[in-house]
Amino acid sequence: MSVERRRREGGRARNAVPTKLPQLPRQDVVNPYPPMELLSADQVEAIHQTSLRILEELGIEVMSRRALDIFARAGATVDHASMTVRLDRGLVEQALATAPSSFTLTPRNPEKRVILSGAHINFGLVAGPPNVHDCVRGRRQGNYQDYCDLIRLAQSFNCIHLLGNQVCAPIELPANSRHLDTYRANLVHTDLVYHCSAIGAGRATDAIRMTAIARGLTLEQMKASPAVLTIISVNSPRRFDEAMSEGLVAMAEHGQAVVITPFTLMGAMAPVTLAGALAQQNAEALLGITLSQLVNPGCPVVYGAFTSNVDMRSGAPAFGTPENTKANVASGQLARRYRLPYRASNSNASNVADAQSAYETQMALWGAVLGHCNLVYHAAGWLEGGLTSSFEKLVLDVEMLQHMIEFLKPIAVDDAELAFDAIAGVATGGHFFASPHTLERYERAFYQPMVSNWQNYENWQLAGGLDATQRATRIWQRALAEYEEPPLDPAIREELDAYVRTRRAEIAAGEP
Amino acid sequence: MSVERRRREGGRARNAVPTKLPQLPRQDVVNPYPPMELLSADQVEAIHQTSLRILEELGIEVMSRRALDIFARAGATVDHASMTVRLDRGLVEQALATAPSSFTLTPRNPEKRVILSGAHINFGLVAGPPNVHDCVRGRRQGNYQDYCDLIRLAQSFNCIHLLGNQVCAPIELPANSRHLDTYRANLVHTDLVYHCSAIGAGRATDAIRMTAIARGLTLEQMKASPAVLTIISVNSPRRFDEAMSEGLVAMAEHGQAVVITPFTLMGAMAPVTLAGALAQQNAEALLGITLSQLVNPGCPVVYGAFTSNVDMRSGAPAFGTPENTKANVASGQLARRYRLPYRASNSNASNVADAQSAYETQMALWGAVLGHCNLVYHAAGWLEGGLTSSFEKLVLDVEMLQHMIEFLKPIAVDDAELAFDAIAGVATGGHFFASPHTLERYERAFYQPMVSNWQNYENWQLAGGLDATQRATRIWQRALAEYEEPPLDPAIREELDAYVRTRRAEIAAGEP
Repeated sequence: MSVERRRREGGRARNAVPTKLPQLPRQDVVNPYPPMELLSADQVEAIHQTSLRILEELGIEVMSRRALDIFARAGATVDHASMTVRLDRGLVEQALATAPSSFTLTPRNPEKRVILSGAHINFGLVAGPPNVHDCVRGRRQGNYQDYCDLIRLAQSFNCIHLLGNQVCAPIELPANSRHLDTYRANLVHTDLVYHCSAIGAGRATDAIRMTAIARGLTLEQMKASPAVLTIISVNSPRRFDEAMSEGLVAMAEHGQAVVITPFTLMGAMAPVTLAGALAQQNAEALLGITLSQLVNPGCPVVYGAFTSNVDMRSGAPAFGTPENTKANVASGQLARRYRLPYRASNSNASNVADAQSAYETQMALWGAVLGHCNLVYHAAGWLEGGLTSSFEKLVLDVEMLQHMIEFLKPIAVDDAELAFDAIAGVATGGHFFASPHTLERYERAFYQPMVSNWQNYENWQLAGGLDATQRATRIWQRALAEYEEPPLDPAIREELDAYVRTRRAEIAAGEP
Repeated sequence: MSVERRRREGGRARNAVPTKLPQLPRQDVVNPYPPMELLSADQVEAIHQTSLRILEELGIEVMSRRALDIFARAGATVDHASMTVRLDRGLVEQALATAPSSFTLTPRNPEKRVILSGAHINFGLVAGPPNVHDCVRGRRQGNYQDYCDLIRLAQSFNCIHLLGNQVCAPIELPANSRHLDTYRANLVHTDLVYHCSAIGAGRATDAIRMTAIARGLTLEQMKASPAVLTIISVNSPRRFDEAMSEGLVAMAEHGQAVVITPFTLMGAMAPVTLAGALAQQNAEALLGITLSQLVNPGCPVVYGAFTSNVDMRSGAPAFGTPENTKANVASGQLARRYRLPYRASNSNASNVADAQSAYETQMALWGAVLGHCNLVYHAAGWLEGGLTSSFEKLVLDVEMLQHMIEFLKPIAVDDAELAFDAIAGVATGGHFFASPHTLERYERAFYQPMVSNWQNYENWQLAGGLDATQRATRIWQRALAEYEEPPLDPAIREELDAYVRTRRAEIAAGEP
């Protein structure tokens, strides 16, 4: 059809040869619509009250003498033998009064700061998998080369706002110092905010010090302008282990952000009922939030939610389920009850970057977005319930995140957009391809997908008949080929390298 | 781990051998939460006013003398030369005053009635593709055997509430009488509500008469208890063709339901802007709604929306895009402005049942559900932008619909669900597998998926390493093997067969 051909040729002529993979620009993402609410105000209050009862009557085990002392000094009831802390509601209220409702994290490139506030949504790279997969080289254990390639992809895709902690484990490097290698890689190959490890105070302070070097700041200045955040994973039910407790204290002392995330898988580490799991999640989160504020009133803290269910036939964790989606929406109501920034996840349980991985991801993502999640962790690259970082899934997730970013852009309604004159100018049964109203706007009117293929079947077959996952392979390969390292002052790079050398030697010598 | 093994064995012992594919029971689906609103009240009003201007100043071409006469008699301005109808707002308001805000369609099995009202959501089988695909036999032209197998699957999966019109074209049958074969198949192999063809009055009245036979009702009784519905596709921009206009009139005369659905693909058949496309969609829908009420005040009519965009590089239609998702939400606001039931679609533009087909479907589906769509057309089986009915996609869609149905079930919050005693009964760092609270509930606590696989990677590999699409093949094969035809009185079946024989002969002899 000649009109369509003309449109195609017009498109080619105007776009010229693209030098880089087309994608959305880096932008702050905001959900301009009210949050979805699955719980009534009474139901939120009932969950809140149950969580206070858990804190007051049952208590939480905190396996750190240092943290126990902090709680005891603040007036909490501490049983040192069982390492159990019982918190009365007054202490919780006091902590909530000092916890900031919003804050900003500033990486070495201040333009890539991350705002954890209100309706802002930030997408983080997957964190923590031991394994890596791509469709060219197959499944393998995590390693440093893949680590660097995956964070290079996060640097390359504008919709990924920050790095999670260890996108894969570089297992060929010594376990007690590999955090130094990954922090250095984060700071050299990207200019993004990153999560650090808080398994003990040492790993946390290394991240803070290295980031201070990269930003050219003192630790005191870093305290006033936080850059680093960490996930404090609670060993649910009702246990903070020693390393996480001490990591939390170290981060709070330095004014860096902690995300308190109970690991409340319904039926396994939490009650099989959603209300019960949310009450437990809430109690555990409030304990960690209280600790952060006792250490450093006003330090940045995030309400983390990871409530999902398990397969009751096998005990295997499941994600992107209807229950997980509900939890992602309802947890936002709890976080807002406390006026705290809110973290959830974009997870799935598929073993392969297939249709299941896509629909489970969509379920989790819609729950997070409708629930006004501020930090969508594991937003890109998560596979196998978190056991594998997938190059193809990362690209498919980028496509899904871009879809969501575009969906959240408000609909413009004015005379030009209502297009009465354009409608008057096209005959009944005609077409709008050649309308001036179309020609003025068509290049930017619609979202241009990265992965989606809209060819007709015959052309798609002629072009190789690749499915979305196969096309994703080509996209990550192209993105890596086009990757550009963000500029870094050579003196800073040397200082980072010197820090890593020194600390590696200290750790090898047995220092913490 | 012994606890997990015990849980698995418990699960096996209690479930015994399932005789049929496990799935959710047939149920009314209701969205208990308020609809999402992307447009302000002022923006809705601006779109409404623009659509009234289109109707008053530009008019709509209606290529049926009979329909033009109906408009002229009602006082509309009719230009018989150009077959253009201009409607003033008074006529539109009058029609909207008689159109029912809700109605029920009753098939031969009254338990499978479909309620088009308020927050009710009904999912329809894909309609209209010329082709069929499955992963065993590949892509082929539509045929009667596949037609019957696809509607048997709709009968088998409880979450599919009704049939669309011609799930595939049985092209080996004569074009002018194949509607009789498909109606008969619908009435014999299923007991569901079905859409009929309204390409001319004859095809519509055949459906009404055959359904009356199947229900044992007179046409007068059918008028008081509608059973059949049809899609009136508008040849956008601003044209109702002759066959659709006359099909609409025939359906309205018999008190059966019409869904007025403008084909407003932005940039092609509608303005490139969303507000403009919605204004045009609205004008076209209001014209069809007005015609239905002029023919038979109070007859059931549905506000249909199909606004999506095209790929501006090729002119190819795109679905499940951010723009399509926004249109699905915003069109619900327009339908509610008129207190009319609302139809949208669950579409995608992928050529294969892959990750793209899943994420595009999810986008469209969330838009429809959040927009309080009452009739989600093409909810299961749509592929290639509507050119192919896919057996595997049908199964993947059933899984996604079931996820959504479960998501919409409210969260229960009471003492038993809050589970304080269960939490008190599990030690810190322990687990809930053996908790009495869990044991009492675990079998029904969570949604059990049909397609999703939650095995760990090693077990999944040992089981064949099938992706979701490959597993879907086994599921439709099993569902067809387990299919049971719903009972039908042999006398009714004979009467249907006789009707088909008579009408086939009449049509062959040149009768309409």
